[in-house]
Amino acid sequence: MMRRMIGGLLAISAAMSHADEGMWLFNRPPVQEVEEKYGFKIETEWMDHLRESSVRLSSGGSGSFVSAEGLVLTNHHVGARIIASLSTPERDLIQNGFHARKFGDELPCGGLQLNVLVSIKDVTAEVQASITDGMGAEAAVMARRAVIAKLESVPDEESERVLRDVVTLYQGGAYHLYEYRRYTDVRLVFAPDNQVASYGGDADNFEYPRYCLDFCFFRAYEDGEPVKVDHFLKWSEEGAQENELAFVSGHPGSTDRGLTHAQVKAMRDVWMPYSLEMAKRREVLLEAWGSRDLENRRRSKRRLVGTRNWRKAKDGRLAGLLDPGFMEGHRASEMSFRKRLDASSEGKDAEAAFVEIEELLERQKQEGFRGALFGGGDAFDGELFQIARTLVKAAREGEKPDEERQSGFREADRVSLELRLFADDPIYRDLDELRLADSLSFLCGKLGSADPAVAAVLSGKSPKARAAELVRGTGLNDVKLRKRLYEGGKKAIEASDDPMIALVRSIDGEIEMLEERYQRDEEILKQCHERISRARFALDGETGYPDATFSLRLSFGKVSGISEGNIPFHTNYGGLYERERKQASTPPFDLPTRWKDAGKKVDESVALNFVSVHDITGGNSGSPVVNTDGELIGLIFDTNLDGLTNDVAYDGTSGRAVSVDSAGMMHALEVVYEAEELVSELRK
Amino acid sequence: MMRRMIGGLLAISAAMSHADEGMWLFNRPPVQEVEEKYGFKIETEWMDHLRESSVRLSSGGSGSFVSAEGLVLTNHHVGARIIASLSTPERDLIQNGFHARKFGDELPCGGLQLNVLVSIKDVTAEVQASITDGMGAEAAVMARRAVIAKLESVPDEESERVLRDVVTLYQGGAYHLYEYRRYTDVRLVFAPDNQVASYGGDADNFEYPRYCLDFCFFRAYEDGEPVKVDHFLKWSEEGAQENELAFVSGHPGSTDRGLTHAQVKAMRDVWMPYSLEMAKRREVLLEAWGSRDLENRRRSKRRLVGTRNWRKAKDGRLAGLLDPGFMEGHRASEMSFRKRLDASSEGKDAEAAFVEIEELLERQKQEGFRGALFGGGDAFDGELFQIARTLVKAAREGEKPDEERQSGFREADRVSLELRLFADDPIYRDLDELRLADSLSFLCGKLGSADPAVAAVLSGKSPKARAAELVRGTGLNDVKLRKRLYEGGKKAIEASDDPMIALVRSIDGEIEMLEERYQRDEEILKQCHERISRARFALDGETGYPDATFSLRLSFGKVSGISEGNIPFHTNYGGLYERERKQASTPPFDLPTRWKDAGKKVDESVALNFVSVHDITGGNSGSPVVNTDGELIGLIFDTNLDGLTNDVAYDGTSGRAVSVDSAGMMHALEVVYEAEELVSELRK
Repeated sequence: MMRRMIGGLLAISAAMSHADEGMWLFNRPPVQEVEEKYGFKIETEWMDHLRESSVRLSSGGSGSFVSAEGLVLTNHHVGARIIASLSTPERDLIQNGFHARKFGDELPCGGLQLNVLVSIKDVTAEVQASITDGMGAEAAVMARRAVIAKLESVPDEESERVLRDVVTLYQGGAYHLYEYRRYTDVRLVFAPDNQVASYGGDADNFEYPRYCLDFCFFRAYEDGEPVKVDHFLKWSEEGAQENELAFVSGHPGSTDRGLTHAQVKAMRDVWMPYSLEMAKRREVLLEAWGSRDLENRRRSKRRLVGTRNWRKAKDGRLAGLLDPGFMEGHRASEMSFRKRLDASSEGKDAEAAFVEIEELLERQKQEGFRGALFGGGDAFDGELFQIARTLVKAAREGEKPDEERQSGFREADRVSLELRLFADDPIYRDLDELRLADSLSFLCGKLGSADPAVAAVLSGKSPKARAAELVRGTGLNDVKLRKRLYEGGKKAIEASDDPMIALVRSIDGEIEMLEERYQRDEEILKQCHERISRARFALDGETGYPDATFSLRLSFGKVSGISEGNIPFHTNYGGLYERERKQASTPPFDLPTRWKDAGKKVDESVALNFVSVHDITGGNSGSPVVNTDGELIGLIFDTNLDGLTNDVAYDGTSGRAVSVDSAGMMHALEVVYEAEELVSELRK
Repeated sequence: MMRRMIGGLLAISAAMSHADEGMWLFNRPPVQEVEEKYGFKIETEWMDHLRESSVRLSSGGSGSFVSAEGLVLTNHHVGARIIASLSTPERDLIQNGFHARKFGDELPCGGLQLNVLVSIKDVTAEVQASITDGMGAEAAVMARRAVIAKLESVPDEESERVLRDVVTLYQGGAYHLYEYRRYTDVRLVFAPDNQVASYGGDADNFEYPRYCLDFCFFRAYEDGEPVKVDHFLKWSEEGAQENELAFVSGHPGSTDRGLTHAQVKAMRDVWMPYSLEMAKRREVLLEAWGSRDLENRRRSKRRLVGTRNWRKAKDGRLAGLLDPGFMEGHRASEMSFRKRLDASSEGKDAEAAFVEIEELLERQKQEGFRGALFGGGDAFDGELFQIARTLVKAAREGEKPDEERQSGFREADRVSLELRLFADDPIYRDLDELRLADSLSFLCGKLGSADPAVAAVLSGKSPKARAAELVRGTGLNDVKLRKRLYEGGKKAIEASDDPMIALVRSIDGEIEMLEERYQRDEEILKQCHERISRARFALDGETGYPDATFSLRLSFGKVSGISEGNIPFHTNYGGLYERERKQASTPPFDLPTRWKDAGKKVDESVALNFVSVHDITGGNSGSPVVNTDGELIGLIFDTNLDGLTNDVAYDGTSGRAVSVDSAGMMHALEVVYEAEELVSELRK
């Protein structure tokens, strides 16, 4: 499955243009491209309806309204974290699913919010005007932060319902202000059994053919009532048809197609090996702990699934980068562009920017992993540390004028920050202790136990003993304490004798220094890319689409199977039952009891999953797939292995988007879950 | 479970002496120590009987004769590799177990051999005489290799049945020549179902309480008939008694108790993080592949179990090293010893040796991981590469005079080498391809894709594509081809167009250089430790026992539970069934059908596993535990988590050896497996 992947490196998009490629801006849709290739004219009204029906989830995925009463369709894996937090040992909503047959039974999801894009405004001139010639990188960070904070600010009385976000496009080539309608009261309506939602588990993840019912429903509420929405997607009973033109409307998280060759090399040789090493050790830890006991398994399953998913995605992406053929093409394309730069003074400046990026990367390589370990928090895995870190940082940033604060800690972020900080998700101390101990050992391995900062963190104890002391000693699992510390600000943090707070306090100076260094580097990269973009636009014009930024995008392409291996475009319920038989019902190929019982009622010929040629990536999970009539025919939930290189280079030959078919979801709701209420709501 | 762990670093034993500590030499048993503490006198005859009954398995574990007809008891996990190789998809001897009710049904185990220690001779003077003052490190390697090869040589007509091995003790403080009776025709007699042999799988591994029937039986044959042996251990029907004195006779693989502090630090900060990173990525790979399909799972299970076991052991050991308290004690003890060195000229020389070791370690750190990746083969995981490497190396070493060859490729090693090289174990190309691709990616991550040696290995392809080309293209799965290449020597290797042979040929120069460098470093370390040992013996006398070397040792101690947590000394069958119930029969806590069916016949009060205070480590797996009457009361199969630091520092407080009780094995044979033939053979 695709989760939103947070990239550590910045990108601009080269103006490439292949068949069906592109994550297009809603204010610059591929009207001409689609009309030329498919003879279909994208109308403004059609786009507006799709935009108003599209939803972004704060848990890091996409979704859509599918009824007038605020019913939202997304992936089960996008909702899984919330669903797990609503579970208890006695009532495991992940394993057994959930279904509220009336509004009153729908379960409030603290911490989850939905955003619907209302408008886009180009604010490039205002943002770029804040940076003046000769301004140092740190001053530029502050200046840009200040103008963005101002643009994003929302009057207090509106902040519950309005979110403004300045999106950096073409890595500083353009800035757009996105305004969202915000819904903070979201409730769980329906979730299928996990065994069928993520059928085949990690084993089948990123593979195709697939057999997953990876969907669930939430509902947006306002003032205690289901929201009435004007725009929602009509549910197609027929589902996807082979070779039809379809569109995906969703929020691809991030892509790196505009990286310079030096950046791609650094990613391949330094940063990806590092982060994969960390991901694999976390995966081993979670698997080992989960294997000891059924209750451990339940508690760690979601995290393990997420870790595996991330690791598999990164491994696939790294495999693409380790292909010398790809790298040579990337290098050659950059070289040919750089050769064309000699002509103008803008060109010379862009060439200088390429060199500056190389120098910065070399310096980062020399600095090693301290920034990621302390600043990025890799050395401190676990919920309780994260809470402490957020509290200390909120107190620190709270002392600064709003416009100087770091992203995530400004007034405009207050609602999200508090929702997250005060969400009463269960915290498993035993697992938190293991995670912290393991990441502290990772820290020792990376910097050496003799490193003064490491020794200070461990304070004379082994990682295991230190983690035990911190996790057993902290009171931060108590939301009341968090509120007290948060509201008490810097004074309360300084006075606290909570051991986890004390640890973060003792390293917050180093953390802040590393955060600032990281931001300064990001700023330098941003300015370099801006200079390169300017030269590119001057040479080739502003064509194409920018790299993904977890903002709403439109992709287009055909519903189509894969010629290599002759893989048909869709699978059906017959295939699901057959895979279960062949794997002797061994997990993760076992079906829930109700699916076994339903056997005869299920029509084996009904479509379950399908593939299409759409340019998507992590963050697109839960995106609606619509046909030219704007009807919902499917629900994006994954990409196949060959599609994993999309983040760096689009591949339309064997890379595919994988969706749940609308017909398959409807059939499951009708015959297996007997969810008459939902079925009739969807047919309204 | 404990497997033999091959340590990368050398060690001598500091003359430490704690209660019940020690892996004692059979030619210097702890007679005085045991008599003083327990009032039991170890007699020569008692020792000889135990020695003649003890067996070393070439698969890397220990065992014992338990009948006059050559029946050998060892752990299921020691035999698992062989048992797996005798399995097919139709007849899975790992999953379902095996039982030959008559000699004719016993299954020949190609590649497995047993060694019984016949005599020990001190050859220190002869070996040390070969090294003269002023000889360089490389000349010393050659000179020592030559004298050892001569001492180990066996006339051709005896080589089938005699194995001679010069064991380096106290890291060069002493050399002993061990002569073994060798059995090369070994057959599988009995194996229980894997689910009960390794009950709880990796989840319960290194934990206690435990419920494992980790045993199996082989039989030694000669001239097609079961061997008649004069010495074997009488089977105790009562099993282990609380607080009784017991002995373990087995082959601990290696310990590092004599490392200098600088070596321990390098292990903690450089080498263990590196090897754990590799182990964890291999674990992730095997788990992911096995999860895709039941047949994948069967094929990779043994390797996954081994990888997890190794990783857990190393993680436990590293956790010990990351304890600043332990490290400070280690440092202080070395410092106080080094302070005492000033007095004599030998002392000054020893102090210089400490410094030389530090310098060597610093140089190794600068050289990085190239030696491990190319010389150690970490970059080339997979059976087919290993075969190619062995063939190319055999051809290369075959050109040299016997005494100059590397260990493992001398005349004396011929039988073992050929057994291993021509064993027709199944090779799974798909898994081999994945393993090779993954380790090539690891290589890219460690040295960077731009490294010339890495680029040469990949030859313009991605790790994935290169591995596919090599594994799909090689014919080395065919034993006949291997024989032809082996017999054809250098000429045949040079003429071969097999792609895997061609790859190894192209890097063999680098491999040989790195192997030589490694051996030179080992020699320098050896000589340094020799100088330190001399000074230590001069100050304190030659007391105690040397570090483990996979040679026969005796440990003594009490059968005893663990006071922290009040854990009783033994578990019983009632506990086994209870754990299954509590974990809802979820793998790895499910029991095989026959164990469920046998439910009522099984006496829940019969002892299953027990713990004892014995100083053991990997390689001791399968060791007999005997009482003062020399009767077999148990079978070592593991150590608990706290015992994992044993390799560096013995811990007798909460560290424990874990055994299968002899009473428990007998009960299972009688009531569950209805193995009357074995039961009566054991009672004879």
